Amino acid sequence: MGDPAGIGPEVLVKALADPELRRSAHFVIHGLAEPMHAAAERAGITPFWWQVRAGSPLLETATAHDVVLVDHAELADQIGYRPGEKPGAAKASGALSFRFVEDAISAAKGQVPGHTKADAVVTAPISKHAWSMAGHGRWPGHTELLAERFGANRSRMMFVAPKLRVILATAHVPLIEVASHLTIGRVHDTIDLGHEACLALGIERPRIAVAGLNPHAGEEGLLGDEEKRIIAPAIAHAQRNGIDVRGAFPGDTVFNAALKGQFDLVVAMYHDQGLIPVKLLAFDSAVNVTTGLPVWRTSPDHGTAYDIAGKNLADSGSMEQSLQLAVRLSKGALSR
Amino acid sequence: MGDPAGIGPEVLVKALADPELRRSAHFVIHGLAEPMHAAAERAGITPFWWQVRAGSPLLETATAHDVVLVDHAELADQIGYRPGEKPGAAKASGALSFRFVEDAISAAKGQVPGHTKADAVVTAPISKHAWSMAGHGRWPGHTELLAERFGANRSRMMFVAPKLRVILATAHVPLIEVASHLTIGRVHDTIDLGHEACLALGIERPRIAVAGLNPHAGEEGLLGDEEKRIIAPAIAHAQRNGIDVRGAFPGDTVFNAALKGQFDLVVAMYHDQGLIPVKLLAFDSAVNVTTGLPVWRTSPDHGTAYDIAGKNLADSGSMEQSLQLAVRLSKGALSR
Repeated sequence: MGDPAGIGPEVLVKALADPELRRSAHFVIHGLAEPMHAAAERAGITPFWWQVRAGSPLLETATAHDVVLVDHAELADQIGYRPGEKPGAAKASGALSFRFVEDAISAAKGQVPGHTKADAVVTAPISKHAWSMAGHGRWPGHTELLAERFGANRSRMMFVAPKLRVILATAHVPLIEVASHLTIGRVHDTIDLGHEACLALGIERPRIAVAGLNPHAGEEGLLGDEEKRIIAPAIAHAQRNGIDVRGAFPGDTVFNAALKGQFDLVVAMYHDQGLIPVKLLAFDSAVNVTTGLPVWRTSPDHGTAYDIAGKNLADSGSMEQSLQLAVRLSKGALSR
Repeated sequence: MGDPAGIGPEVLVKALADPELRRSAHFVIHGLAEPMHAAAERAGITPFWWQVRAGSPLLETATAHDVVLVDHAELADQIGYRPGEKPGAAKASGALSFRFVEDAISAAKGQVPGHTKADAVVTAPISKHAWSMAGHGRWPGHTELLAERFGANRSRMMFVAPKLRVILATAHVPLIEVASHLTIGRVHDTIDLGHEACLALGIERPRIAVAGLNPHAGEEGLLGDEEKRIIAPAIAHAQRNGIDVRGAFPGDTVFNAALKGQFDLVVAMYHDQGLIPVKLLAFDSAVNVTTGLPVWRTSPDHGTAYDIAGKNLADSGSMEQSLQLAVRLSKGALSR
């Protein structure tokens, strides 16, 4: 559910109101019942989920239902969370959203009694500030927590937009440290993980482009040597493993080539290089995919949007895409 | 004219074929007559220019004409340049295009006898490879040569697209060196030069956004401190001088804000951060503006395109925009 004081509950209710989506998988929502009902009432949607208390043995019967809500009302009472009370609620909503994702992770590990092992985790937005207030500040977000809990050191952030797919070799590091994080292994693994995700998405022979780190992809070494020293060997290694990957291409033109259909995926070297085109082409509507975990994880590419929470104003498009993509990735990976 | 073996002559002929554009200023082309005539013939355009040999005293009568072509046929003969002979011509065409821009610079300095002092320089594309073969490899391009010849240490690259204006704090430096090039003075001067260019473009009170260097603009110092240490003081200094400038904003969302009309100009910290959005939104059609020189300089944002040169296939749109913008900037600056 993400932060219960954000738009998470609303976009979940609106997205799963689609019966076709509900038929495509079993969905278990780790969250709170109250904001779900409030969102449904405001949107004129009849509740479609089956509800169970967190920790209840009744969870065992959950697979009989398309959508199950695991309600943490008890925990909310304990920590004094009152839905709708915005000021001062950050600490409590942070504690709740942290618990929700911890439970989802346990479910994906098959560690929740009565809960079928999950194939994918979809996360609604959390607030880093709220996590920090609740004492969970050392994780910048879901992605890093998931990587740690699953012991996955190859995990990478990938973004899927209608016309563009981008995977990041590095993500939340200061720009000055990007070059020192880039190794042949890191770039190679990013290519490999992106390739795997494209296959799961049903792309038969993914064509992958790698962006350079420096202006003009280093211009034959005149503007930096990482392209020759790090990126080229990583590409060569991936090619030897049969991956259709080329580069390094200049960062300022490679995304145009992908848009024209020349590539299925662009490997970006750092956060803004990959996110600038994603946000320009699909602001708030791209899906964030975490690769390299034992399960697929998707997430809408927007925040908690506290300012419009509880007003029935949120667009659930990105959450719908995230849920659909999680289903598609899980089935794609299974069919291989 | 830029490289005479590229599409420069063709886009000049096509762009200046517009009588309205010709009436807006006096244009002096430093180049070669032969490819101009060839391009005109292929495009079915009647030559509209008045021609004079380089160094001829007849140049004094040039102001009586809208478009004057200063022909370097003699130099071409000396160095053995044959138009159309592509292979091996790089050295000769590099020597010629270098001379053309040196002459344009002299004209802008008022040092060419008989030539009115130019208010603006428009450059058609050159080949860095050809310059290098001709012994001029130490300048990566026009921009750096112009800055050196004019002794301008504050010059900056700016890009003007239909919906977006971007100025770069740093340009052709390896990514790992970007942070060390950023100083309070450099960021401040970039804001200042961008502000000045916007005023010359007729924007009364330019609203300027500054992009951060790090992911999420450093996220309150968690992902880098350059925003607090360098960018914020530069912005504060510019604000004290009366400039409407704000930031640092996250690089991956600031361009969307500008596109929505919230800002007239974005100050980008490095090459790809600024060029990725420019190329995505206006591939090959943006105009490159050099600020901080004693004259305005504009340039189309495409290369020599040797592969389509001499085939009447080149689109002159970006050159037209470059010529129009040079006129607009010169008049805007004069009227202030």
